Amino acid sequence: MQRTVWADADCPMARAVDLVGEWGSLLILREAFGGVTRFDDFQERLQISRHLLTTRLKKLVAGGVLARQPIEDGGKRQEYVLTPMGQDFYTTVVALRQWGDRWLFAPRPHPADMVDAVDGSVLAPLEVRSSKGRRVGPGDIRLKPTKKR
Amino acid sequence: MQRTVWADADCPMARAVDLVGEWGSLLILREAFGGVTRFDDFQERLQISRHLLTTRLKKLVAGGVLARQPIEDGGKRQEYVLTPMGQDFYTTVVALRQWGDRWLFAPRPHPADMVDAVDGSVLAPLEVRSSKGRRVGPGDIRLKPTKKR
Repeated sequence: MQRTVWADADCPMARAVDLVGEWGSLLILREAFGGVTRFDDFQERLQISRHLLTTRLKKLVAGGVLARQPIEDGGKRQEYVLTPMGQDFYTTVVALRQWGDRWLFAPRPHPADMVDAVDGSVLAPLEVRSSKGRRVGPGDIRLKPTKKR
Repeated sequence: MQRTVWADADCPMARAVDLVGEWGSLLILREAFGGVTRFDDFQERLQISRHLLTTRLKKLVAGGVLARQPIEDGGKRQEYVLTPMGQDFYTTVVALRQWGDRWLFAPRPHPADMVDAVDGSVLAPLEVRSSKGRRVGPGDIRLKPTKKR
């Protein structure tokens, strides 16, 4: 019920949370970015019930984040792959992980870094900037109507 | 049970999700960034049960994301404010909202933009970059050990 309120809410974050914010969904996406595509592999890595995993995958497919497609082995099995919409979610995954790195691993830093496979350097911390290039802090953000409702 | 597995997991994103990824928590944080501090105001805006709200707020306080402090009106009431750790979560909030804006409001864009209160311009889309400045795509990220375990 409450979920419906948020899904209808005229707020991009509420709609995003409604789609990916349920327990399990974010970690399914983490695994998908790690290359996991098969139901059994998600299940083994996340250690959640098959029922819950089925429910979450269905919602992510219905919402357009994942697509279901036949595995190319001639059988009937399906796999789950990130759509362009799902791929684009990686900025949020990086933001979450960098925040976790900064605050949840003191004083012993996590022993792996996210690196750019192309140039080999560690990812820079994401920076919120204005379109004029100014570094924007958490207290500097306002919502401004773009048109009359 | 499963939650414990993730909380212990040696992964910054799993720990972050364990702390803020439960249903309701992300929207509590959205409201906190919007300036909401009082229990009744959270409750009215989110339309969730007082019991669930209490549970979520307790966890966010225990995890160091929110701090509970007396309201300065001489009474006994408490309010909830973002700690520095909580403030730092705004990058994830911006990432989620920008993703929602791009994918969940077509073809009619959401009628409000996030703007920088200081220079007045719209926030730029967050960009994942390497420390050398390269724009990193979703398929370019690898994990690399920083030390022997």
